[in-house]
Amino acid sequence: MRIDGRNNNELRQIKIYTDYILNANGSALIEMGNTRVICTAAIDDKVPAFLKGTGKGWITSEYGMLPGSTRIRKVRESSRGRPEGRTMEIQRLIGRSLRCVTDTDLLGERTIWIDCDVIQADGGTRTCSITGGYIALVQCIKSMLDQELIEKSPIKSYAAAVSVGIVNNEIMLDLCYEEDSLATVDMNLVMNEKYELIEIQGTGEISPFTLKDLDILVKMGQTGIRQIIDCQKEALGNLNCLVGQEV
Amino acid sequence: MRIDGRNNNELRQIKIYTDYILNANGSALIEMGNTRVICTAAIDDKVPAFLKGTGKGWITSEYGMLPGSTRIRKVRESSRGRPEGRTMEIQRLIGRSLRCVTDTDLLGERTIWIDCDVIQADGGTRTCSITGGYIALVQCIKSMLDQELIEKSPIKSYAAAVSVGIVNNEIMLDLCYEEDSLATVDMNLVMNEKYELIEIQGTGEISPFTLKDLDILVKMGQTGIRQIIDCQKEALGNLNCLVGQEV
Amino acid sequence: MRIDGRNNNELRQIKIYTDYILNANGSALIEMGNTRVICTAAIDDKVPAFLKGTGKGWITSEYGMLPGSTRIRKVRESSRGRPEGRTMEIQRLIGRSLRCVTDTDLLGERTIWIDCDVIQADGGTRTCSITGGYIALVQCIKSMLDQELIEKSPIKSYAAAVSVGIVNNEIMLDLCYEEDSLATVDMNLVMNEKYELIEIQGTGEISPFTLKDLDILVKMGQTGIRQIIDCQKEALGNLNCLVGQEV
Amino acid sequence: MRIDGRNNNELRQIKIYTDYILNANGSALIEMGNTRVICTAAIDDKVPAFLKGTGKGWITSEYGMLPGSTRIRKVRESSRGRPEGRTMEIQRLIGRSLRCVTDTDLLGERTIWIDCDVIQADGGTRTCSITGGYIALVQCIKSMLDQELIEKSPIKSYAAAVSVGIVNNEIMLDLCYEEDSLATVDMNLVMNEKYELIEIQGTGEISPFTLKDLDILVKMGQTGIRQIIDCQKEALGNLNCLVGQEV
Amino acid sequence: MRIDGRNNNELRQIKIYTDYILNANGSALIEMGNTRVICTAAIDDKVPAFLKGTGKGWITSEYGMLPGSTRIRKVRESSRGRPEGRTMEIQRLIGRSLRCVTDTDLLGERTIWIDCDVIQADGGTRTCSITGGYIALVQCIKSMLDQELIEKSPIKSYAAAVSVGIVNNEIMLDLCYEEDSLATVDMNLVMNEKYELIEIQGTGEISPFTLKDLDILVKMGQTGIRQIIDCQKEALGNLNCLVGQEV
Amino acid sequence: MRIDGRNNNELRQIKIYTDYILNANGSALIEMGNTRVICTAAIDDKVPAFLKGTGKGWITSEYGMLPGSTRIRKVRESSRGRPEGRTMEIQRLIGRSLRCVTDTDLLGERTIWIDCDVIQADGGTRTCSITGGYIALVQCIKSMLDQELIEKSPIKSYAAAVSVGIVNNEIMLDLCYEEDSLATVDMNLVMNEKYELIEIQGTGEISPFTLKDLDILVKMGQTGIRQIIDCQKEALGNLNCLVGQEV
Repeated sequence: MRIDGRNNNELRQIKIYTDYILNANGSALIEMGNTRVICTAAIDDKVPAFLKGTGKGWITSEYGMLPGSTRIRKVRESSRGRPEGRTMEIQRLIGRSLRCVTDTDLLGERTIWIDCDVIQADGGTRTCSITGGYIALVQCIKSMLDQELIEKSPIKSYAAAVSVGIVNNEIMLDLCYEEDSLATVDMNLVMNEKYELIEIQGTGEISPFTLKDLDILVKMGQTGIRQIIDCQKEALGNLNCLVGQEV
Repeated sequence: MRIDGRNNNELRQIKIYTDYILNANGSALIEMGNTRVICTAAIDDKVPAFLKGTGKGWITSEYGMLPGSTRIRKVRESSRGRPEGRTMEIQRLIGRSLRCVTDTDLLGERTIWIDCDVIQADGGTRTCSITGGYIALVQCIKSMLDQELIEKSPIKSYAAAVSVGIVNNEIMLDLCYEEDSLATVDMNLVMNEKYELIEIQGTGEISPFTLKDLDILVKMGQTGIRQIIDCQKEALGNLNCLVGQEV
Repeated sequence: MRIDGRNNNELRQIKIYTDYILNANGSALIEMGNTRVICTAAIDDKVPAFLKGTGKGWITSEYGMLPGSTRIRKVRESSRGRPEGRTMEIQRLIGRSLRCVTDTDLLGERTIWIDCDVIQADGGTRTCSITGGYIALVQCIKSMLDQELIEKSPIKSYAAAVSVGIVNNEIMLDLCYEEDSLATVDMNLVMNEKYELIEIQGTGEISPFTLKDLDILVKMGQTGIRQIIDCQKEALGNLNCLVGQEV
Repeated sequence: MRIDGRNNNELRQIKIYTDYILNANGSALIEMGNTRVICTAAIDDKVPAFLKGTGKGWITSEYGMLPGSTRIRKVRESSRGRPEGRTMEIQRLIGRSLRCVTDTDLLGERTIWIDCDVIQADGGTRTCSITGGYIALVQCIKSMLDQELIEKSPIKSYAAAVSVGIVNNEIMLDLCYEEDSLATVDMNLVMNEKYELIEIQGTGEISPFTLKDLDILVKMGQTGIRQIIDCQKEALGNLNCLVGQEV
Repeated sequence: MRIDGRNNNELRQIKIYTDYILNANGSALIEMGNTRVICTAAIDDKVPAFLKGTGKGWITSEYGMLPGSTRIRKVRESSRGRPEGRTMEIQRLIGRSLRCVTDTDLLGERTIWIDCDVIQADGGTRTCSITGGYIALVQCIKSMLDQELIEKSPIKSYAAAVSVGIVNNEIMLDLCYEEDSLATVDMNLVMNEKYELIEIQGTGEISPFTLKDLDILVKMGQTGIRQIIDCQKEALGNLNCLVGQEV
Repeated sequence: MRIDGRNNNELRQIKIYTDYILNANGSALIEMGNTRVICTAAIDDKVPAFLKGTGKGWITSEYGMLPGSTRIRKVRESSRGRPEGRTMEIQRLIGRSLRCVTDTDLLGERTIWIDCDVIQADGGTRTCSITGGYIALVQCIKSMLDQELIEKSPIKSYAAAVSVGIVNNEIMLDLCYEEDSLATVDMNLVMNEKYELIEIQGTGEISPFTLKDLDILVKMGQTGIRQIIDCQKEALGNLNCLVGQEV
């Protein structure tokens, strides 16, 4: 049995509070167990250089951890003068994942910024950010439709993420911090609602893993993502109509 | 009557949620109207260079705004590579204010970091940070007593802050964002429970003000701070015994 | 009696050398006792983003200390990679103070940069910078009128600054470095020629102060500022005609 | 048929020139087709903070691209002031991969730095860096044995990497730059000599992929890695005896 | 006799491999003894601010050392956040030297970037960079003529560089690293094919030198540069026709 | 005749005001025509890493220009985040030049910082900084002797610097800004009192120069340096006894 009493294939409790931040174009507080992330979406009239003049849009993401979110106070990246490698890795992952389920050509020359700020960390902050960032994105699309900035929803599919790993030779779903610290294999999966892979990132730094392990890990991830997408649907309520019109 | 229907000498509603972040040594979510700030306290075994070898401690503060906290997305300071001037000004103010009511000599060679992160901004974020940061500080002292890091509470007094200003020639308490934008005089006051001044910062950038105005502004501030300290006492509950043993 | 033999309400000797730097559009070397600051003004054809296209101008300031200006060599901020918090706080204060007495709408889309560089520090460098920066500003306005960049002087009033404080329970005017180090209350005041407040910044980090103290401190500041404005008038000579045409 | 005439499961030609840089403790120039990377290893007597006092060592990596290595000149990261996200992602990957096949406890409190600098880029620079960085690492271990810094080789296994992807709905091995630009799915695989996974990173930013695709991609990767490890063995010559003593 | 057996007025062996990097508009690997530098040239459609709208072009240079190029691993400048003083000094020297022999007015509003990256350092890297950078420049001019970006070659003359110095009271040509470490006088000379001086930089940090020494040093440098220009001519082959049309 | 009426071999008027900054261990304001530089010296108990534990000392220098010192306001390097290349080049030159005439082994493990800050620029700021920095250095040595930090003066010789150049085909001494802008050859010379060369830096960016030109330039420089050293001697007064004890 796991540290917190869960079965190996059991998720932590998920809560999604939508419209959590008044000033944002879309926002959610998402909790997976003790991991809590504020996700906000903002519309920006600029696009990266490579898109200027194309009429096409972009989705990008930034990720941060509040200094008090971790057991040992996390030094603020603005004091260090630059985001650290892990931060860049995570925010690039969030951006790619959300762009994968969005037809960014329909956004016009605009960037949607998805900010994911961890206020309490207990493992799985990057997957939690993708799942919650998705909610903020859909709300932002709603706001753009309401403001008549766009004519139809560019959201092609749901997108959610979960971690899996091998801890003490057991394959487990949705690792908390303590499990993550002990894991010999650590994997993050992002999938759409067809349970196709958007991203797979697995590392066996402590111990390599076989193709058979890979198969079991990915399938356990699918199980988790199914439930997470159900939570997203519940949180989105009548915004679900904005998803998947093209599929 | 004011934008949000308040009287000139009326505070916005204050809510303080204590123990808001599990990983911190002390924490609170404080709300003044729509302004919401997460305050956390962390114990650090290091002190600034000028205190090394003295056996004395320090309290310092950092302040940040989440990108989604403002109507126009706020560029992350880690992207800009350095905190901006306003940020530095605010965090220096929070640090000075909390040190003023603490006998830092009693902390041992330790630094308490008070982090104030604005998750939603609607005016008064710096005063809100001081008021909420004070709560996190007292909780942190409790934790240090429990861990037997210190023997007695170093907290000498309550400390709370409020803004006052002149808007459309009216002197007002606790300005929201829209009022702040229109203010010709803008003042922040930090006081202890005897309503003595810890800090006064008033600026008449748009229009200078008389000594008589100053007098009225400060007295209206006192009224507000009285109520805010009452909220602090309510939030602290049985931690109130840690305050003011030396006064 | 004070360290340098002054009475509590006595200023140090003030000297203002105008046109000190040939290459600048306005300049002064100002001395208050042993504190010496070079102030220069420069005209820039650009304005901050929020003013572009408005036809309005701006005044901004930067402040620095030469490495040799302090008893312990001050590390150059260009080596540290960024201005420190104190620097930002001071230069923001100088800018606000000078904008307060200038109708920046009359400048056209131009920025006037006021640079204040301390070559020798003995307390009161920020107030000295405001007083001297004002001289450079007026000279710069003269230069702009001569070049026919503007048609009338935008200077609405004199502006000068002084420090006051509580040292050994005595309220004193114009603190030198040693007094400043001992002060329990430290306050900077900026006023116009009507002795209205442009800025008040008082901090009781070591010991809070009462409203009665505040009153005495501000009134002693008024006394000092009266004499400082007299020095400014003497230094400006026939440029005095550029001041206060609108008052 | 592919742009350069290869079959889908065919690698580009690999060349490994060992001892390429005299001043380094280990070095190689590795070429995969037109991609060319200089890999060097350096011994450092310091370890990261978390290892101080443990007697254990570390392997870390840095990655760079010369400005002239790309078709459009790549701006030097020292001019930008910080490594970009992609760089950090890659160098973290190289470090993890090489640590996975090394018993870093046997290194003593030392860090081995593996520097991978791309002098000509044509796709697959990160996998090429891992494969070539491994050679530099083994040479460095030889040098440490010769200097009697360590007693036995800590290298547990071979490690090599390759890219696979889906281009025009075809699954292909070892993508060159033009293929990489067209790929809808892009995957990097690192394996040991048992063809177990050390790292898997796959992204379907343009188009998600199924579990079946995943299976084919990974198996094609295995085929490539088999040949690459053969090249490593040939390049290492009599240093092969340093590998895998513990397996 | 010298460390490596050369006579005092003898160069190390020079090798120049042209077209070394496929992606660059011009490139060479240059070796002087064990010093090896990759030089590339890139065409950029932008010019520095002071040239905008003039129709004139620019040549600029950047210099770097790979971490593995030195006996003690060189910390990457992108990690340090800024190029060090020595780097800036060298790259400014390379740029000035190449501009001196080029009629940059003929380039159109374009910048040619000359990147010199040391892959193995054994003294004389800056002079080697100038000599090799010149080759990359001429190749780049060829490419611009082929692309019909320019109509005639702007190259006015050859340009080459060499170091001289005083080591153990002997005046020597082309110092290797060990000689350089012992030198009391260290001088770098850049000349055109008439053996006129483009740059002279001599430093007697350890021991000043007389005007007579200066004369001998410069004349010995001339001897070396004569041979180096011969090597350049051999390397350029039929590109020699692009040089010196205006002389 | 020259812009300012001087003969080609004539210096501008030199003034040296010693003890210009009270807080420094040594200081001077030096003027050469309209170029004015504040030079200060400071004793630091630390040495660079390569000298730790050797008992030997170091001299280093930093150079800056006040924003108002130039006709077009100079952007503060602390705003740009890093010193520019020219600054680094100059401060390295000043440091080398002063170390050359000092037996730094006699300083104990201490660094003397020489700060040269240009308050008004009209050509020749770097040579002026060396000449003035030397005065601050000797004063600092006096202060170290008085404090009994050292037993004997480590100053081996005088050191002074001057610029020479070719302007309109005329060889000229001590160029002012306008001449410098027109110069085809620009050279800076640093010499000791025997008129031996400490540094020579000559650049013919606009037009190469012959060995004969070199000879004339250097000899004209000697003439200037003779007079500058005379000014140094006059300024140093009875501190001259600290110079050259070892020669």
